[in-house]
Amino acid sequence: MKVDFIFDVASPNAYFVHKIIPAFESKTGVIFNYIPCLLGGIMHLTNNKPPFVAFSDVESKMKYQMIEMDRFIKKHNLVNFKFNSNFPMKTVAIQRGAIAAKQLNILDAYLECIFSAVWEQNIDLANEENFFETLKKNGLNDLKIKEIISSQACKDELIKNTQNAVDKGVFGVPTFIYKDEIFFGKDHLDQLEDALKT
Amino acid sequence: MKVDFIFDVASPNAYFVHKIIPAFESKTGVIFNYIPCLLGGIMHLTNNKPPFVAFSDVESKMKYQMIEMDRFIKKHNLVNFKFNSNFPMKTVAIQRGAIAAKQLNILDAYLECIFSAVWEQNIDLANEENFFETLKKNGLNDLKIKEIISSQACKDELIKNTQNAVDKGVFGVPTFIYKDEIFFGKDHLDQLEDALKT
Repeated sequence: MKVDFIFDVASPNAYFVHKIIPAFESKTGVIFNYIPCLLGGIMHLTNNKPPFVAFSDVESKMKYQMIEMDRFIKKHNLVNFKFNSNFPMKTVAIQRGAIAAKQLNILDAYLECIFSAVWEQNIDLANEENFFETLKKNGLNDLKIKEIISSQACKDELIKNTQNAVDKGVFGVPTFIYKDEIFFGKDHLDQLEDALKT
Repeated sequence: MKVDFIFDVASPNAYFVHKIIPAFESKTGVIFNYIPCLLGGIMHLTNNKPPFVAFSDVESKMKYQMIEMDRFIKKHNLVNFKFNSNFPMKTVAIQRGAIAAKQLNILDAYLECIFSAVWEQNIDLANEENFFETLKKNGLNDLKIKEIISSQACKDELIKNTQNAVDKGVFGVPTFIYKDEIFFGKDHLDQLEDALKT
């Protein structure tokens, strides 16, 4: 069984899901297929707005989002999480990098590196220098990744992934697609689990 | 253990929660204290907008909301649910009626009557004639309820309930309040359950 995982490191909720995926895979026997997309592109193509924009003037709702995030953190013991002070972050290069990492067969190591940098170490990965330095420090082939993400083919693939996701009904991340059904958000993994059982 | 349940029959999600509350009470030993509020008032006081307004032009998000609703219906076997064609509905009289019913010690029967009328039988309860006729048909004291909801005390109580909820951080319905902590939405009853255990 395979679930497509539509993600962009720009979203803290993508980080949260990334952290609990191993346990979910063990429990259900399913494999998550990470599909790098661009959240900004998804938002643009669907007219959607992130909650912090759509509800920017609804103080109590914004406050609740943080409460609810804290509950998730506590429940899953994600003690290393730190909200990135550079949020919202441009992630085009990072998401192209995920496509490059897939090609180089180093996706797992790449994901660990970038999710940790953005959502544990408060690094501004939108800064190109920081980005490549972080890859290098983590033993990833920064020069090769730099070469691939400069190629038109890589740029096109990120656009294609994003458009494909939108065509399937995706309007944000994290989203899971199983048998053409979509499941949105870190709070709906239980619905995905129900679907996997049927 | 007691949980305040901030509700307005205007919301289909309030209906969904109302239907699964008995099982939740049995499982957890908690008692839900229904607090009639006015959703329109909550929205106004917090600058919040219902999803169908905030995301009216995000077609795929709107479509997903219905998919997600259908999943909830199937999971809990809520076969009698029918989306009311008069949605969104003015519920001032109905919510004042809930306050009256509390006073008359007939809240359970009143809630069964109005939730069923609005979310199972497609009745336009915003229409005063329909409202009192529906109460009468269900053996509820329509004349006494009519008398109470015309009183300033009853009107004031609905305003007070609504303001109190907002003061506690409520920005929509259904919301649950347990030990001054708020839990929003039919999808976060699991978080409430976790809190009850601690």
